[in-house]
Amino acid sequence: MPIFLNRDEPGFETRFAALLEMKREDAPEVDDVVARIISDVRARGDAAVIELTERFDRLSLTPETMAFTSDEIAEAVARVPAVERAALELAADRIRAYHVRQMPEDQSWTDPDGATLGWRWTPVEAAGLYVPGGLASYPSSVLMNAIPAQVAGVNRLVVCAPTPDGVANPLVLLAAQLSGVDVVYRVGGAQAVAAMAYGTDTILPVDKITGPGNAYVAAAKRRVFGKVGIDMIAGPSEILVIADRHNDPDWIAVDLLSQAEHDASAQSILITDDAAFGRAVADAVDKRLETLERRAIAGPSWRDYGAVITVDTLDQAAMLSNRIAPEHLELCVADPHALLTKIRHAGAIFIGQWTPEAIGDYIGGPNHVLPTARSARFSSGLSVMDFLKRTTLAEMSPAALRAIGPAAETLARSESLEAHGLSIRARLDRLNDGPLEEGH
Amino acid sequence: MPIFLNRDEPGFETRFAALLEMKREDAPEVDDVVARIISDVRARGDAAVIELTERFDRLSLTPETMAFTSDEIAEAVARVPAVERAALELAADRIRAYHVRQMPEDQSWTDPDGATLGWRWTPVEAAGLYVPGGLASYPSSVLMNAIPAQVAGVNRLVVCAPTPDGVANPLVLLAAQLSGVDVVYRVGGAQAVAAMAYGTDTILPVDKITGPGNAYVAAAKRRVFGKVGIDMIAGPSEILVIADRHNDPDWIAVDLLSQAEHDASAQSILITDDAAFGRAVADAVDKRLETLERRAIAGPSWRDYGAVITVDTLDQAAMLSNRIAPEHLELCVADPHALLTKIRHAGAIFIGQWTPEAIGDYIGGPNHVLPTARSARFSSGLSVMDFLKRTTLAEMSPAALRAIGPAAETLARSESLEAHGLSIRARLDRLNDGPLEEGH
Repeated sequence: MPIFLNRDEPGFETRFAALLEMKREDAPEVDDVVARIISDVRARGDAAVIELTERFDRLSLTPETMAFTSDEIAEAVARVPAVERAALELAADRIRAYHVRQMPEDQSWTDPDGATLGWRWTPVEAAGLYVPGGLASYPSSVLMNAIPAQVAGVNRLVVCAPTPDGVANPLVLLAAQLSGVDVVYRVGGAQAVAAMAYGTDTILPVDKITGPGNAYVAAAKRRVFGKVGIDMIAGPSEILVIADRHNDPDWIAVDLLSQAEHDASAQSILITDDAAFGRAVADAVDKRLETLERRAIAGPSWRDYGAVITVDTLDQAAMLSNRIAPEHLELCVADPHALLTKIRHAGAIFIGQWTPEAIGDYIGGPNHVLPTARSARFSSGLSVMDFLKRTTLAEMSPAALRAIGPAAETLARSESLEAHGLSIRARLDRLNDGPLEEGH
Repeated sequence: MPIFLNRDEPGFETRFAALLEMKREDAPEVDDVVARIISDVRARGDAAVIELTERFDRLSLTPETMAFTSDEIAEAVARVPAVERAALELAADRIRAYHVRQMPEDQSWTDPDGATLGWRWTPVEAAGLYVPGGLASYPSSVLMNAIPAQVAGVNRLVVCAPTPDGVANPLVLLAAQLSGVDVVYRVGGAQAVAAMAYGTDTILPVDKITGPGNAYVAAAKRRVFGKVGIDMIAGPSEILVIADRHNDPDWIAVDLLSQAEHDASAQSILITDDAAFGRAVADAVDKRLETLERRAIAGPSWRDYGAVITVDTLDQAAMLSNRIAPEHLELCVADPHALLTKIRHAGAIFIGQWTPEAIGDYIGGPNHVLPTARSARFSSGLSVMDFLKRTTLAEMSPAALRAIGPAAETLARSESLEAHGLSIRARLDRLNDGPLEEGH
């Protein structure tokens, strides 16, 4: 049974705080294994990758067969039914249209002192996307990771995707093709992350690694961080729905279940200003759970981590939502825009009853890689910015150096950094000595 | 003696690759100690912070004396000489003016299908800035960390700065005052990071922790990452100067020394297209080292990690620079803008001979917290963005859901996520059943 809380009951604060602190992940202790895998790949390169793939995926590779050939991709992609291809193409187009708008602009200006300042954005040179195998092999995640990289202008874009027993997902290959991926390797696990970070003879090193994965992949990403950039380490999925009684309880029930079905550790929370509506939604969830294909996953998630919270006012709902800082937030209330102005921390917001969260997982346009575990308090979902970096620019005219150099020299001396001061003083002395040598 | 390399000599590639891979940090093994400090602060709060401060800083605190009072700050700040105050104020104004331009804009648009999409930026609620004590207590770093947070609109901004033996740096307090810091705590080390991440009765928890620190602080930041956001973990400082022979060798020498004097592990590299000029700079460095106040730091840095690389063309210089991806890059050549177009990876670029890097450390305007250890390949310096997060927004009209919902349903089914599909199907069925219920 999910947790039922009422804002007016005594002890609410304690129980709500406990809900916030609830541990949902039992991260298995894989760090030592992963450390050994990474050392092995660093030391032996392709040979290690091949051995580990044989062991974990029961697949015999050679350096020549590590990557899918274009013929193999074409053949697999040709098997995708037309309706699925059309859906994936529409998704790719919409995701691209959204992310193109995220491209930031370079700036440059000259201030009154004569200092020309600004910055310039450049893409990372090469990015590697991890795509899980098996049940969690989601073509939509390929689009969500690869398209921002493509839009950013990343020069070389590779995918590592395990193919246990040699079985590949044609939709994953199609998604890679639609989003400008250059190479897809049949390699997974920590060995894939190690190969992309450090490089082997066959798999060239990249500068940034993104994408979801199991505990081994997550531990490997943590370990290679610094050598390369990584995206966030995502926790189990979450949804918070704020709904008033003017909703079909069944719609809200399936919305809650759409996160619960991801993972038994996922969390679905309803906040409502109508206790009876809350009970109706809980009943609708139970009813849907009787027949849901993934009831063995969604059921435990709902019973162990689900919650229905009743409040007096939607202002209270917004306040609680800001403390939860949910990954996904649905606003299913009469005036969602009024409520929206009160929300400060959330990964993605779905506004109004015609915007189920699942639209955002596939086709809305915004990214579905979003901050979990309350990290929306301080971080954002994946975007074009994750594949760009900003270089700051400064150019002093002699006049600018004369205007602001002395203050920099003062500060350098106050910090006992003599050479800092000297590098300014040497130039100021030249400026004071004689006529300005403009340029060279 | 620094390393001398020549692009034309046999074995150059091997020696340059070794320079790139050179390990300059011997990170002491402090992680266990830090883990115990964090647990202690989580368990015992203020009492642990007070005990640890007594032990490490030889300072007796009570919860009441943990923070500086406004009287204490006013008194300390009054002791700052007028010329230093004016310099710090000018720096704060210029840094603020630069960072205000970084504020990103919200966006919202409605596409032809009737989907309203966009995003919204919001500041993190509370940020904590760590300021080291002792030799590395730099007021300029307070400005560089706090002003971006202030510009972003962070609601609560606190500083933790150890005061060994009770000695505070008045310039640090003035810098905090100039950049909108709300409270300064006399607490340092891993205990300060733990207190800011988890909160104590006196030190409220924050959402993001930034700022430099020693190995204990760095290990603590790594450990609390996830609970709160952190900025990068900075390595030893680096500078790369690309200079032709039309430069005063002494200017370039002091520029190289301005990084070397930070830390015996710092790295200063010159790339030049004139071998004689390179030798002249190395001679000038040696001469300056005879009298430099910090020669005991700058000397070992230059001798152990310094390098002078001779190339044939500036194109080659740009290619090597992109492989180094330096934290700081000076372009001291006849046509720096032509060279600039070839640079792809660098934290900050200083253009032309009148722009010594030290200008950027204090007063240029751009941030001096920059990616080290080749991480400019995939990351950027500190900015307003580090104190903001983006929430994506989506709102479907019934028509939009009808237009794009079926494709999302197809993709959900292809990923075997039934409830995802049902949450869209339930709404599509209503739309097909009868007249549109617009809104509630």
